[in-house]
Amino acid sequence: MVSGFAGGMSEVFSPRRRLECLLAFEAALARALARAGVTTTDAAAVVVASCAVDAIDVARIERDAVSAGNEAIPLIEQLRGLVARTDRTAANVVHYGATSQDAIDTALMLQLRDAIALFDRDVGRLASALADLAIAEADTPMAARTWMQHAIPTTFGFKVAGWLDGIVRAHSRIRALCDGAIALQFGGAAGTLAALGPLGPDVARSLSDELGLPLPVIAWHATRDRVGEVATTLGLLSATLGKIARDLSLLMQTEVDEVREPSALAGSGRSGRSSTMPQKRNPVRCAAILSAAVRMPGLVAAALAEMVQEHERALGGWQAEWATIPQICELAFDALEHTTVVVAGLEVNRDRMAANLEMTHGLLFAEAVTFALAAAIGRQAAADVTTRSIRRATEEGRHLRDVLVDDDEVCRHLSPASIDGLFDPRRYLGVAARAARQVADSAILEIGSDRARLSAVTRR
Amino acid sequence: MVSGFAGGMSEVFSPRRRLECLLAFEAALARALARAGVTTTDAAAVVVASCAVDAIDVARIERDAVSAGNEAIPLIEQLRGLVARTDRTAANVVHYGATSQDAIDTALMLQLRDAIALFDRDVGRLASALADLAIAEADTPMAARTWMQHAIPTTFGFKVAGWLDGIVRAHSRIRALCDGAIALQFGGAAGTLAALGPLGPDVARSLSDELGLPLPVIAWHATRDRVGEVATTLGLLSATLGKIARDLSLLMQTEVDEVREPSALAGSGRSGRSSTMPQKRNPVRCAAILSAAVRMPGLVAAALAEMVQEHERALGGWQAEWATIPQICELAFDALEHTTVVVAGLEVNRDRMAANLEMTHGLLFAEAVTFALAAAIGRQAAADVTTRSIRRATEEGRHLRDVLVDDDEVCRHLSPASIDGLFDPRRYLGVAARAARQVADSAILEIGSDRARLSAVTRR
Amino acid sequence: MVSGFAGGMSEVFSPRRRLECLLAFEAALARALARAGVTTTDAAAVVVASCAVDAIDVARIERDAVSAGNEAIPLIEQLRGLVARTDRTAANVVHYGATSQDAIDTALMLQLRDAIALFDRDVGRLASALADLAIAEADTPMAARTWMQHAIPTTFGFKVAGWLDGIVRAHSRIRALCDGAIALQFGGAAGTLAALGPLGPDVARSLSDELGLPLPVIAWHATRDRVGEVATTLGLLSATLGKIARDLSLLMQTEVDEVREPSALAGSGRSGRSSTMPQKRNPVRCAAILSAAVRMPGLVAAALAEMVQEHERALGGWQAEWATIPQICELAFDALEHTTVVVAGLEVNRDRMAANLEMTHGLLFAEAVTFALAAAIGRQAAADVTTRSIRRATEEGRHLRDVLVDDDEVCRHLSPASIDGLFDPRRYLGVAARAARQVADSAILEIGSDRARLSAVTRR
Amino acid sequence: MVSGFAGGMSEVFSPRRRLECLLAFEAALARALARAGVTTTDAAAVVVASCAVDAIDVARIERDAVSAGNEAIPLIEQLRGLVARTDRTAANVVHYGATSQDAIDTALMLQLRDAIALFDRDVGRLASALADLAIAEADTPMAARTWMQHAIPTTFGFKVAGWLDGIVRAHSRIRALCDGAIALQFGGAAGTLAALGPLGPDVARSLSDELGLPLPVIAWHATRDRVGEVATTLGLLSATLGKIARDLSLLMQTEVDEVREPSALAGSGRSGRSSTMPQKRNPVRCAAILSAAVRMPGLVAAALAEMVQEHERALGGWQAEWATIPQICELAFDALEHTTVVVAGLEVNRDRMAANLEMTHGLLFAEAVTFALAAAIGRQAAADVTTRSIRRATEEGRHLRDVLVDDDEVCRHLSPASIDGLFDPRRYLGVAARAARQVADSAILEIGSDRARLSAVTRR
Repeated sequence: MVSGFAGGMSEVFSPRRRLECLLAFEAALARALARAGVTTTDAAAVVVASCAVDAIDVARIERDAVSAGNEAIPLIEQLRGLVARTDRTAANVVHYGATSQDAIDTALMLQLRDAIALFDRDVGRLASALADLAIAEADTPMAARTWMQHAIPTTFGFKVAGWLDGIVRAHSRIRALCDGAIALQFGGAAGTLAALGPLGPDVARSLSDELGLPLPVIAWHATRDRVGEVATTLGLLSATLGKIARDLSLLMQTEVDEVREPSALAGSGRSGRSSTMPQKRNPVRCAAILSAAVRMPGLVAAALAEMVQEHERALGGWQAEWATIPQICELAFDALEHTTVVVAGLEVNRDRMAANLEMTHGLLFAEAVTFALAAAIGRQAAADVTTRSIRRATEEGRHLRDVLVDDDEVCRHLSPASIDGLFDPRRYLGVAARAARQVADSAILEIGSDRARLSAVTRR
Repeated sequence: MVSGFAGGMSEVFSPRRRLECLLAFEAALARALARAGVTTTDAAAVVVASCAVDAIDVARIERDAVSAGNEAIPLIEQLRGLVARTDRTAANVVHYGATSQDAIDTALMLQLRDAIALFDRDVGRLASALADLAIAEADTPMAARTWMQHAIPTTFGFKVAGWLDGIVRAHSRIRALCDGAIALQFGGAAGTLAALGPLGPDVARSLSDELGLPLPVIAWHATRDRVGEVATTLGLLSATLGKIARDLSLLMQTEVDEVREPSALAGSGRSGRSSTMPQKRNPVRCAAILSAAVRMPGLVAAALAEMVQEHERALGGWQAEWATIPQICELAFDALEHTTVVVAGLEVNRDRMAANLEMTHGLLFAEAVTFALAAAIGRQAAADVTTRSIRRATEEGRHLRDVLVDDDEVCRHLSPASIDGLFDPRRYLGVAARAARQVADSAILEIGSDRARLSAVTRR
Repeated sequence: MVSGFAGGMSEVFSPRRRLECLLAFEAALARALARAGVTTTDAAAVVVASCAVDAIDVARIERDAVSAGNEAIPLIEQLRGLVARTDRTAANVVHYGATSQDAIDTALMLQLRDAIALFDRDVGRLASALADLAIAEADTPMAARTWMQHAIPTTFGFKVAGWLDGIVRAHSRIRALCDGAIALQFGGAAGTLAALGPLGPDVARSLSDELGLPLPVIAWHATRDRVGEVATTLGLLSATLGKIARDLSLLMQTEVDEVREPSALAGSGRSGRSSTMPQKRNPVRCAAILSAAVRMPGLVAAALAEMVQEHERALGGWQAEWATIPQICELAFDALEHTTVVVAGLEVNRDRMAANLEMTHGLLFAEAVTFALAAAIGRQAAADVTTRSIRRATEEGRHLRDVLVDDDEVCRHLSPASIDGLFDPRRYLGVAARAARQVADSAILEIGSDRARLSAVTRR
Repeated sequence: MVSGFAGGMSEVFSPRRRLECLLAFEAALARALARAGVTTTDAAAVVVASCAVDAIDVARIERDAVSAGNEAIPLIEQLRGLVARTDRTAANVVHYGATSQDAIDTALMLQLRDAIALFDRDVGRLASALADLAIAEADTPMAARTWMQHAIPTTFGFKVAGWLDGIVRAHSRIRALCDGAIALQFGGAAGTLAALGPLGPDVARSLSDELGLPLPVIAWHATRDRVGEVATTLGLLSATLGKIARDLSLLMQTEVDEVREPSALAGSGRSGRSSTMPQKRNPVRCAAILSAAVRMPGLVAAALAEMVQEHERALGGWQAEWATIPQICELAFDALEHTTVVVAGLEVNRDRMAANLEMTHGLLFAEAVTFALAAAIGRQAAADVTTRSIRRATEEGRHLRDVLVDDDEVCRHLSPASIDGLFDPRRYLGVAARAARQVADSAILEIGSDRARLSAVTRR
């Protein structure tokens, strides 16, 4: 309903594109058959020339696919008819030696190759945006929240670096798909290439060349972990994006108000606005990302369940992939695009971050107090003093600092100035700023350096 | 990809129909506001007249929905514009007192009411088809299979009655949805109807009347179990259909060959045929049903996860419903339609069922032998004799009957004629035939009698 | 890891209890066989006397179950041995005419009957606690939040009534399980009762009497929707509880601080406290409830997937139920108990609710302003004025009220006093208080009235 | 219920082992603190000496964990008490600078490291067993089945090689977990190590050394893709095993009978036997593997849903991992062990495979006929002849060979001898045998060569 961004990805998995990929398989097969000497170059050329989606009666394919059990069978039938009009003999070459699953699975792989390239590019973009944000906010103090309660100070850049860290690994996993998951499927009726006799392996090799798809050591018609791994990899990505959106949406709450989604698309000016409550700025993109994160686990579960396929061609599991895998790709991509827009245009309210650090009247610094005292009186005694002081501060409605300054035992070990220093968030940030920069720098390095290699793999 | 049957259901959930339902809400609201005296009948009439989907710029809605966060906001904006062209004041009435979630949730309920009516009708049809089959085959002996191994004889009608039994309960659950799950959603920004002041309840009551949707005791904007229950109910249906298709596909295996899917759609003549292996008749409908059964659990999981919605309007869970719920309806309906076609046109091969009963040379009747002997020598001694005889029959490649006739101990207790009788499947069917007829009869009774009540509930 | 409450439910599904239920089946079967005249009362008495879990070598059962494929087979073997020690002939009676699935499925039903009784009781308790809270807080104003942003005022009681509304329906669904889902399973090897000859139905009826379990019209060994419905019903409950916990945990955030989980178990005093951050009070029970809500959809998905069972006894799906169903019951019950404790002991901070209503300097009342103006100048003109005023209030850092009082157009239609009144949350609550009380009252009524009926159904 | 094999894995995730790993973290932390100069070697030694699970009151931990929210808090409290008995000051060192999540997450990583080592070893074993089987049966003809219908001949070794192909990739994925997924978690309250001041990074490095766990670039307390990837990797494994078991169980059907599970555990002799149907040999191990495959997708869905964790420590998602991840490991391992036993001891019935090839009276060779004719008359004309001949063969109940020999058109192109040859399955196997051997050989090579590297990574 509300996607808007899946543009690139919906095209990859559009019905038209699917037919194009099926035809790409048939065209490449004709060429491969000619290269292997199974047919003539002329006959192959006629087939190749007929593999144009515009010549296909798409409505008829959808209708006939119901009884045929898949789209490839009626498509091939139409293609044969088209070829026969030009050259009756060449029609014999169409789909020669292949089974419909070869066409369908290979077409899926062509689509997935494009999908992975889009993911690679755009997860890279998100990583860049996160790296920029992590560096820009590396030193911005904010409250860290555990169990959704204020814990101690951290920096916003450190928080962002935690998100980035997950995205960097998501990126590696997506790139690894190019090596492991993408492969030609070509085996004939049962994977043995029996119909092509001794020429089977030659045709397979040529077909792999034609399509630029790796030739697997054995046909994988009923061994579906390649497809499953695409699903799980995008499932991990989607969950990682969901965590970012969950955090952002919590930070956007009226009571917290530390960040805001960028407002609206250019020219619209009404993004996430309610008509009777114009004060609201709804996190509509976060909602879309979280919506994807909520739906995705079930889709990945389906993808895994689909892998249990019967014998040499399955009955249910294989057919179920046709809907599940494109949906997973589109949904994850939609979430990815929204996240990138949000991160790249995020409005950060540093003042509010600072103000929120103060809202508990010093209680956020309890751990800092404990560890400062621990150096003098031991950790446990220190914890007792802190607990006592917090109780007093809470009961008397005073700032923890003031309670400590009044406490004789505390003053025996800490000077008023050093007590004061304990309540400066900048002094209790540990490795936050450094780690934020480090994660960002290494992300930029990694994503850049691998880019060349990948584009080679995914080029057509 | 290969659906073909979701006809009726895809229309219920088509983008156009969704807009129609949103407009139906807005029109009914205008009328209800007039009935409650919030506005004039004339102003309401202008709004109602403008609520026509053909006047809407659908592409613009899809585009604007991205930044608005849902389709209702841009639709209402367009509607206001359309009304204002006729009557500037009447534009004030559009959507008055409502929130976009009221429109979206109520529109979903209008769609679900139609969906449930289709399910009610067609699950009823399937039940009839199964009842007919159960009666027709009540006495047809076949092998019962446990752990996918021949166990003892049963009848095909009894097996079908087991399927029917599950479908009858699926039917009751679907009908129960009319009472529990379908309801008007109308509460304004936070469910309190505050914008309408003291007239809120009046408007709500009128709106409920206008749309023929039950008025709930409290707005359910963030209490989503109604929607969740639709999902789980269809999940149970889909799994029940999956069991039928699993059994059928096992019975259709080349080696078993006891039933066949009806061949093809009229005129097509190639249903499930492979082009190079014309001997095959692929169970393409069973594949579609099993495909639904494999995908559905993940979709239901998503529907349940979506129910955890934040405060008075959620961020992720609500939006996720928009894709999940229609998909569940369409997928379950697709499986239902395929199952009905398969059951209604099933080709039953009684000869093969009889032949398969014989294929283990009497071993299928081992239990019958044991219990016949048990009457004389006790169950355990009988089990020992049977085990011993089976071993002999297997080792010597003989029929179990012949081994028993040769066994002195056996012959002491059973005459040759009674031994022979043990291997007549018709004598070891227990309650099979009677239960098959009983289940079928009561199904016909139940599904018929409730029909009047339901049609009253679901009429618009 | 952190459950603590599943006490009652873990006992229902303890390994020992499972064996007890299996033995209860075997004992009841012996009695039923005697009643039907298949065996003598004396022989049955010996079997019944031997059905004591303490006499069983549990470790051996677990070991032998691996190769036997289930626990019933080795248990019955042991039971036969025990009976034989007393009366060699009576050993023949053990498990006579039954299959191991009869014992296992019926034992599960005995456990589920107990589980449902516990759920019925405790969902009722939760409903009472929610009803009390809804009534107590019916008039307490708080901010309603949509998209996790302040929207308009509501009351806390109204919010609680929304939770209660879902729990009341969860309660009905659980009660309905007693009628539809609970049933005896008894059919012998393939459901036909063939081994018992003409006495089969008599034995079945007696067995149903003995165990107090409804006798189904047909054996359901491979028709698993009864079991599936238990899973989906508890899945819906768990999600409904998750919504409550999600809301509560959002309200418990440091920045919101409107409610708190009751502190600690009696005597512990450290519930949810961090050792170095003693100021924190972690919502540990909400975490447990949300943890259940996160895990449950996947478990329900498994339960649905398990329903696709092969022929007369499945290979995978049936065995998977043994782990899934108890887990679902225990997890849902754990969440239920935690929710009840939290609701019953919730600390409500009305002052903070009031303060939070004020935190946006009047913006929360934007809708009230719009609708007040709308009466005079029409809804759209009113919306424009509000939007303009909000912008000014935000830019100038002033309260919206003050901006409105300064606005000539506004003052033309609204007196200063009536402007002031718009910012009183108590005047913009719509049906909140009334609906809260109504939901609570009818919940108390419904849950009370059904109690008698249910206890009759679930008594043993 | 019926596991029996999870031996090793259940120990890895036993409650006792979990406490041991938590204590291992605390001991290593004490040592690391001493190495970094935060405390003395003596104090650390006292802590280390106290980190013995036998000194812990386990029941009290389980009780207190309910209110504390996790097991680490009460464990650390007890540990402090134990240390204090020996050396009051040393008690200050316990858990110094760490948060309970550091202990819990790192303990999980120690368990996962062991789990991965077991998986690596045993997936390797399964691969070996499959490779042996693929080689042994490389030339054994059997029917390939698509849509669960006979398609063309293949070899059993080729089928096995298809399974192995998936297992080899599962193996690589599991090994990759050592590099990517396993890491120390150490960050203190919010990941910043603030409590340790400038010494934080030193302590972290030492702790990483002590435990032999890689030091991540940033704490991952709320970035859970490492844990999620373990889940998805095992989900892929489990589905791959499920495919093997599905195929095996189909091949074990009474009507097919081409393979059998190895019978029973040594000494038991009753594996999978029914007491009244001793002829049956139930595929109990396949049932266990399929049961795991049915349950696993839902568990992986849960693991993905759990990754959406709030801020610096989650509320629900994190706690849910504690149950989900061990369950996934145990379930996948259980399935793995069963599969290995089945594959290693599989009884292959080559005679039955050969007989089943013949059961369709030549129809299985339809594709061979078509392609033989295609060389002469073109593929389409050939397909027509085949279809016509099949119809005749079916109608007249004759062998397809005989029909062809009678067909003048066929005889014009094919000699009787060459027609005969078309029905020899050995002549229509394509690459089957070669590919089977190739996959097996390369599997043996790959799994062997990586073994050294891995054992280095996973050693403790």
